Amino acid sequence: MTNKITGIAASNGVAIAKAYKLVDPDLSFETRTIDDTQGEKDRIRAAFLSSKADLEEIRTKAEESMGADEAEVFTAHIMVTEDPELLSNINDKIDSDKTNAEAALVAVTDMFIGMFESMADDNPYMAERAADIRDVTKRVLSHLLGKELPNPALINEEVVIIAQDMTPSDTAQLDRRYVKGFITNVGGRTAHAAIMARTLEIPAIVGSEVATKEIADGDTVVLDGLDGLALVNPTADEMTAYQAKGDQYAAKKAAWAKLKNEKSVSADGKEFIIGANIGTPKDLGGVADNGAEGVGLYRTEFLYMDSTELPTEEDQFESYKKVLKSMDGKPVTVRTMDIGGDKHLPYLPLPEEDNPFLGYRAIRISLDRDDIFRTQLRALIRASVYGQLWIMFPMVATLPEFRAARDIFNEEKAKLIAEGTQVSDDIKLGIMIEIPAAAVLADKFAQEVDFFSIGTNDLIGYSMAADRGNDRISYLYQPYNPSILRLVKNVIDSAHKYGKFAAMCGEMAGDPVALPILVGMGLDEFSMSATSILQARSLMKQLDTKDMAKLADKAVDAETNDEVVALVKANVAAD
Amino acid sequence: MTNKITGIAASNGVAIAKAYKLVDPDLSFETRTIDDTQGEKDRIRAAFLSSKADLEEIRTKAEESMGADEAEVFTAHIMVTEDPELLSNINDKIDSDKTNAEAALVAVTDMFIGMFESMADDNPYMAERAADIRDVTKRVLSHLLGKELPNPALINEEVVIIAQDMTPSDTAQLDRRYVKGFITNVGGRTAHAAIMARTLEIPAIVGSEVATKEIADGDTVVLDGLDGLALVNPTADEMTAYQAKGDQYAAKKAAWAKLKNEKSVSADGKEFIIGANIGTPKDLGGVADNGAEGVGLYRTEFLYMDSTELPTEEDQFESYKKVLKSMDGKPVTVRTMDIGGDKHLPYLPLPEEDNPFLGYRAIRISLDRDDIFRTQLRALIRASVYGQLWIMFPMVATLPEFRAARDIFNEEKAKLIAEGTQVSDDIKLGIMIEIPAAAVLADKFAQEVDFFSIGTNDLIGYSMAADRGNDRISYLYQPYNPSILRLVKNVIDSAHKYGKFAAMCGEMAGDPVALPILVGMGLDEFSMSATSILQARSLMKQLDTKDMAKLADKAVDAETNDEVVALVKANVAAD
Repeated sequence: MTNKITGIAASNGVAIAKAYKLVDPDLSFETRTIDDTQGEKDRIRAAFLSSKADLEEIRTKAEESMGADEAEVFTAHIMVTEDPELLSNINDKIDSDKTNAEAALVAVTDMFIGMFESMADDNPYMAERAADIRDVTKRVLSHLLGKELPNPALINEEVVIIAQDMTPSDTAQLDRRYVKGFITNVGGRTAHAAIMARTLEIPAIVGSEVATKEIADGDTVVLDGLDGLALVNPTADEMTAYQAKGDQYAAKKAAWAKLKNEKSVSADGKEFIIGANIGTPKDLGGVADNGAEGVGLYRTEFLYMDSTELPTEEDQFESYKKVLKSMDGKPVTVRTMDIGGDKHLPYLPLPEEDNPFLGYRAIRISLDRDDIFRTQLRALIRASVYGQLWIMFPMVATLPEFRAARDIFNEEKAKLIAEGTQVSDDIKLGIMIEIPAAAVLADKFAQEVDFFSIGTNDLIGYSMAADRGNDRISYLYQPYNPSILRLVKNVIDSAHKYGKFAAMCGEMAGDPVALPILVGMGLDEFSMSATSILQARSLMKQLDTKDMAKLADKAVDAETNDEVVALVKANVAAD
Repeated sequence: MTNKITGIAASNGVAIAKAYKLVDPDLSFETRTIDDTQGEKDRIRAAFLSSKADLEEIRTKAEESMGADEAEVFTAHIMVTEDPELLSNINDKIDSDKTNAEAALVAVTDMFIGMFESMADDNPYMAERAADIRDVTKRVLSHLLGKELPNPALINEEVVIIAQDMTPSDTAQLDRRYVKGFITNVGGRTAHAAIMARTLEIPAIVGSEVATKEIADGDTVVLDGLDGLALVNPTADEMTAYQAKGDQYAAKKAAWAKLKNEKSVSADGKEFIIGANIGTPKDLGGVADNGAEGVGLYRTEFLYMDSTELPTEEDQFESYKKVLKSMDGKPVTVRTMDIGGDKHLPYLPLPEEDNPFLGYRAIRISLDRDDIFRTQLRALIRASVYGQLWIMFPMVATLPEFRAARDIFNEEKAKLIAEGTQVSDDIKLGIMIEIPAAAVLADKFAQEVDFFSIGTNDLIGYSMAADRGNDRISYLYQPYNPSILRLVKNVIDSAHKYGKFAAMCGEMAGDPVALPILVGMGLDEFSMSATSILQARSLMKQLDTKDMAKLADKAVDAETNDEVVALVKANVAAD
């Protein structure tokens, strides 16, 4: 019988291909005393040369499939294999300890890794250097032990990757032409692997728990990312059925693609805005390809995180200008620096906190360190002449916080005008609604802000008192819990009562279960990953706002998350 | 001019006394090479003997003032000074390293402390043993260096203690006859020192920042715990004025004491219940002394924390029975095990979490580890025949969680009845409302529970996304923020809509600013520290519920925490 594996449907589509297991072999070894030290030195030299040859081949492939930038990491790895000091230290260790090559390799590289890591706090490049040595050590060790390391960059036939988890460095090596999908053992819909799969638009299942155990290298795998189901070595009939399901989904995607230049409009003609969430100007390609009507969330913290020091006003100005110009007059909502929590800057030490998600982060840091905040606001205000700028403050809990941020904004704007700088006189100021207190008090905030953008990821986490990154209690991360829907409705209603604009920029905005309810509540803007936009636009076209308003009323009066899911399924028959 | 120091008013009353600085002297020293090793060995022996003499005197005083139980810790310290192995190790170190007594002492005790601490995970007694050695080392070192250590247990005249902070071991040594108040540099109203001061009913100021710097040993200090103000070396006129203020407060307290056997009733005759929060049956004395009309919160986690293994059903039964019998038919609300977050059990390892307050805790653990939960529920159900038992589940976020807990309760109750055990047929089941999602969905919960008890400490923390233990953002811990008041009102209104009972057991219930608003909202039960009860009852007698209802309406429509404080001050003229 066909073995079936279930997991979390993390990215839509159907793939049928051979399994490629991205699992490290057992690289354990014994430390031995050796008389023939020259023999060990020959072994380590050969292993270094073989590793270098591997890496050169991987780099060439990576350049072909992903471009020179993405292949850069392998140049760093090759340099490690060429480092004369590293090899001579290992040789010395073999001589002095009369030990085998494996033991000498690990002893010496551990020392270097430790040394670089101890410097990593002051200099983030040292952490990368430590990671490079760790990667190369694994490869050299595999050659010494005669084990084969998986080389995802060398994949040259269509495969479905099976892995415990996918790290950013794993995904950087993948050739999009050959990798048809992923199945991982761990993770949820918001794990890196899941987000990557959606960006690459390939199907994926995460959190399967057993994939690496139940699937062997070379097994034929049907991966149904629509329903979170994988079939291992399926029958011919099953293959045919899933091939058809895949074709059907591909046809749907083709139909969605036709919506690229259309408006986002409901069946009864009400217009909405579907925007894109971006992290850097690099993401603008996806924004254009998917017909976004604006940028609903520009996460500026990457400007701070991808740097070794605080970004200058000029650097920031260039980035903001690029995004605003590229969007050509469409609104761009820029969120001011949202660090703290799980996001740290090597050059801005934050206090150790017992509960960083309930701590010093985002606007709390910006108001405390207004030197950093003023630089960002000046760059934004200067860039405002290149498009339609909306500035959003994250993690606002109280009205005095918003007022303080607004005052600082007004001060910097006045200073720039006094200096003779051109600035837009129509910059909107709003807040991200992600703290329950702000959602509850939305009617008061609505009288002072220009817009709200609901950040559902944190709003759900705080409202349910559940860290979504914590596997033990992730069942409490419930986007459709009626309490969350009531808070969302209160925010939208409060905005509209005072003629203000209500957006959403969390995962929920692009979620097919939530979207009908949000249409019913009259949310103005839905901002999501660019790759979700066309499907959302298609779904929207099928919804009648009056029917959805009734559905939303039922949803906020439901008792549980599951009840809301069932309600939507019973009332929305979208294709 | 009199030096004035301000801080957080942490415990009411006025004290005038000499300053006693509870500040460790500088115990730093240099490591030296010594020829006369015998001289060093003589020095260390003398220092051990002096320390032992100190400790015997301290123990005698502590027994007199606080009883044998509290003095037990000093017996352990004395045993350390008598430990022959410790001294011989130090002597060996002096001989082998030719080093001075100070260096040998610290090297050897550090080794022992490290050893005991490494065993502390498996055995909590080892942690105490490490703490004992650390305390004694400090004392021996002070004798070696000729510095005087503060000995709070030896205080024999009236003083106001000035300290950086007060630890539990500091407060254990205090003689209530002589210590008239505290002023600390750090901490908030809910810090250990503040709670201790309220329990001892002595005035206190915390978070003064500068007290240890600005006040010298022996300075005359006026401590006004009502307004959070201290005067250093005041003028005669100031002394007289504050003496009068203190007398006035004492008179007020005497008037409150007369309310001990009265009902808790508003000026217009509406009856409320004022209950006490307790941690162990030992707290029942304070409950009776202050005329509590019930126990609104019995925190059972002390049963688990004061133990080296899971408490048995029998142990728990005895504790619950004792509390229920002692309350003589008055309602006793028992909260089931609330561990996790910052409360850990040595014998029940919990996972490491990035944000433990948003993690695996309380009912989440109970439902996951229902073996532990069933034992507690059985003990409670068996004890139910001895009084009026209300069982409350902490950290409930969703209805399915409450239903699962209720099902387990019903199963165990049915089993006990089948076994022929006598049980009450009127046990109430309720939930603690401390998660925003539950507060928002209170109307749904109200249809299934018997009662709510609002746990304001966590409710405020989650709603504001602010860990109140985090000094950097403690300004966001705002009990009177209108968003919090709206959630509280929603909980009370929802309970009453379905004929259910609404209580509050957080700090806020006994707070003079919040109480008038809560009376206005019609909260049924106010549960608080026993020492706050009589003052709360006195305040309640002065309030008209119709006026307070109008005040509450204004408060939930306010914009900020400060605005609500001003509203109450303008509308409630309580003495």
